[in-house]
Amino acid sequence: MKPDSRRVIADLKELKALTSDEHGGAQRVAWGPVWRKTRAWFEGKLKSELGLGTERDGAGNLWASMPGQRRGSLVIGSHLDSVPSGGWLDGCLGVIAGLEVLRRVKANGTPPVTVHLVDWADEEGARFGRSLAGSAASAGTLDAQKELAHLVDRNGVKLPDAMRENGVPLEGMATAAAYFKRLQARAYLELHIEQGPVLESMKKPVAVVLGTMGVERHTLRFIGQAAHSGAAPIHLRRDAFLAAAEFALACRDISVKHSGKTPRSRVVATCGVVKVEPNFVTAVPGTTDISIDLRALDGKVLGKMLAEAKAASLKAAKRNQVKVEWQPLLHITPRLFDETLMGFVRDAIKQVTKGPAPELPSGPLHDAAEMAAVVPTAMVFAQSSPGVSHTRIEDTPLPALDASIRAFLLAVDRTLAHLAHG
Amino acid sequence: MKPDSRRVIADLKELKALTSDEHGGAQRVAWGPVWRKTRAWFEGKLKSELGLGTERDGAGNLWASMPGQRRGSLVIGSHLDSVPSGGWLDGCLGVIAGLEVLRRVKANGTPPVTVHLVDWADEEGARFGRSLAGSAASAGTLDAQKELAHLVDRNGVKLPDAMRENGVPLEGMATAAAYFKRLQARAYLELHIEQGPVLESMKKPVAVVLGTMGVERHTLRFIGQAAHSGAAPIHLRRDAFLAAAEFALACRDISVKHSGKTPRSRVVATCGVVKVEPNFVTAVPGTTDISIDLRALDGKVLGKMLAEAKAASLKAAKRNQVKVEWQPLLHITPRLFDETLMGFVRDAIKQVTKGPAPELPSGPLHDAAEMAAVVPTAMVFAQSSPGVSHTRIEDTPLPALDASIRAFLLAVDRTLAHLAHG
Repeated sequence: MKPDSRRVIADLKELKALTSDEHGGAQRVAWGPVWRKTRAWFEGKLKSELGLGTERDGAGNLWASMPGQRRGSLVIGSHLDSVPSGGWLDGCLGVIAGLEVLRRVKANGTPPVTVHLVDWADEEGARFGRSLAGSAASAGTLDAQKELAHLVDRNGVKLPDAMRENGVPLEGMATAAAYFKRLQARAYLELHIEQGPVLESMKKPVAVVLGTMGVERHTLRFIGQAAHSGAAPIHLRRDAFLAAAEFALACRDISVKHSGKTPRSRVVATCGVVKVEPNFVTAVPGTTDISIDLRALDGKVLGKMLAEAKAASLKAAKRNQVKVEWQPLLHITPRLFDETLMGFVRDAIKQVTKGPAPELPSGPLHDAAEMAAVVPTAMVFAQSSPGVSHTRIEDTPLPALDASIRAFLLAVDRTLAHLAHG
Repeated sequence: MKPDSRRVIADLKELKALTSDEHGGAQRVAWGPVWRKTRAWFEGKLKSELGLGTERDGAGNLWASMPGQRRGSLVIGSHLDSVPSGGWLDGCLGVIAGLEVLRRVKANGTPPVTVHLVDWADEEGARFGRSLAGSAASAGTLDAQKELAHLVDRNGVKLPDAMRENGVPLEGMATAAAYFKRLQARAYLELHIEQGPVLESMKKPVAVVLGTMGVERHTLRFIGQAAHSGAAPIHLRRDAFLAAAEFALACRDISVKHSGKTPRSRVVATCGVVKVEPNFVTAVPGTTDISIDLRALDGKVLGKMLAEAKAASLKAAKRNQVKVEWQPLLHITPRLFDETLMGFVRDAIKQVTKGPAPELPSGPLHDAAEMAAVVPTAMVFAQSSPGVSHTRIEDTPLPALDASIRAFLLAVDRTLAHLAHG
């Protein structure tokens, strides 16, 4: 059966019409009414087209399953939830492509292993701040009491209350890991949009993802001395902002230095938050808070970058006669995807595009990063154009959408064939 | 009569006790109750010690006068108002030293020319944002309807209403210039604390002020493209903050380049306000607003600095693939003080300190800057230690306070002797 993207794209357009409001953009924020409507629509498709029911695990992840001939299973997943006013494809592309997988599997008779399709709950963390909650619960890496119990949204609603409103008590989240173990998953595959400009700049529709980058995220405070802009001569100043400016530029130099020529060796450094005090036009900044977010696919390289960033901060502090303090915010280990499964993805892309298969690491995290810790995992990226993230203008041109869906379906075929002989 | 600082310092301590509240620091904000109490205390001193009454001009400036033998006058002034929780000496040092001038003049009989002591109204502009209002009105450089009528404080009180509460209708402000002209002022002298670290770093108690620096104040917006910190490779970014960082460091280089070795040729550049958007740890900054405040005593140098800063902003924008827009905020022409009067100040400092007279430009503005446009003007700086501004911890060590008051009194003597022969 030749892979075909038409039903997937038609379903995605239907979902877009159903769950985008007058502000434009998807409004499928997890635990809210539009998200529930989305899931009801999705369950309706499963029922009416395939006669499939669904199950919710303890974390609120939504599962549909097509039993196979032997033990073990293939899991296909992504997420239907979105950020507020998000893009029409972020997450739901992978779930709706999974629906097409089930259609194809059913048309071919009983699959060699069971195929599970999962819509992970609250991948975005858009309302309460903790992303990947559902897939992390399934992977057993989430401590719900510690990480979720205290979270509150902008309106003062507690996450446990929002979850209970959806029939998902916080106390039951820990059972999601046991639920997942019982599936005896042998492979996890996910199709997602890139949400970055790399494939667009390469003019390539689809890529194999090498893994998700490790992250070192910290906040720094440079502490100098506020002074009057007219009264303080340059050489007597202790300007905290100029120290932070030198640090930010040094971090870019560090990322350029450690970036190799291949996408695999690309690393990044970002100063996204900057806050100066007293923040008056006539005041030499006395303190400056600045964030640094370092990412690399190679953990050793990431460690070196962090050490060099720390050295750069000390040098900038000394040069400007200020002090610097570091506070860690987040540490994520790189997650490399499975070589065998990546090979199937690579072959599928070559077949669909009649050209080489681009490969790139994912800077943003995905549910696949959680899965990679517990099951062989691979991921397919569809080109984004414009290559932006979490905005209603993020998009994928139809030819790239078509190619990426077909490559994903072929990669699933190859994986199933592989598991049939496992 | 030998100049003596003791009564001045005693009066300043009395005023400190009277007008500092439990937060510490002076609370003599213009047009408010503590300011009115300060003026009442000051008028009481004039009356009880010297038998002098006072007059208020149309701008609310408070005048006390001691008639002289011939036409023309010497004006001594500064301001009793303060910022909230300000220092105990900022402004009132000059007014209380002026009170001592009147005591000395009276003790010597009728002065050669009339001596006026003025307490300028609302020098700080702390409540409504327009500084130097009183002295600017006297100098004829203030358009009250245009510059003041619309000003509102944090509580929504309009400046015209606050002024009326003090018996100073806005409509009458323009009369202050005519009032000042009738005084036939031939010299203006002011003693003020430095509010900067220069004299402290030189270990000098007192200096002659060369003038007030010109100011070029602008705000820039660097406009790039926000992107995800993980998804956007460095070479595809349009990072507005890195452009702003390069600009800020270039402006420091420009100020270092244009600063000569003498205090007269010292220039400064300050980026005091920095605002990045979207200001998330995971977002490459899409826009950055940054302020630049350039100051120099030489107007030609100031012009060159501005031109070089503009070129640096374009270079930083180009290098980072972003755009930059400039918005002017403030332009102030340098105001040079009178060479003859500066000579009297220099001689007085040499006599008091038995050493050379340091000279430095004033970065902050003072009432003397307004006076310099209409009357020969000179100014004396007392050392600040710590060399900070507009905080309750700003201070002047007693030996420096003593030396600066005595030098000021001697400079007044020399000026009066000069005017006697004018």
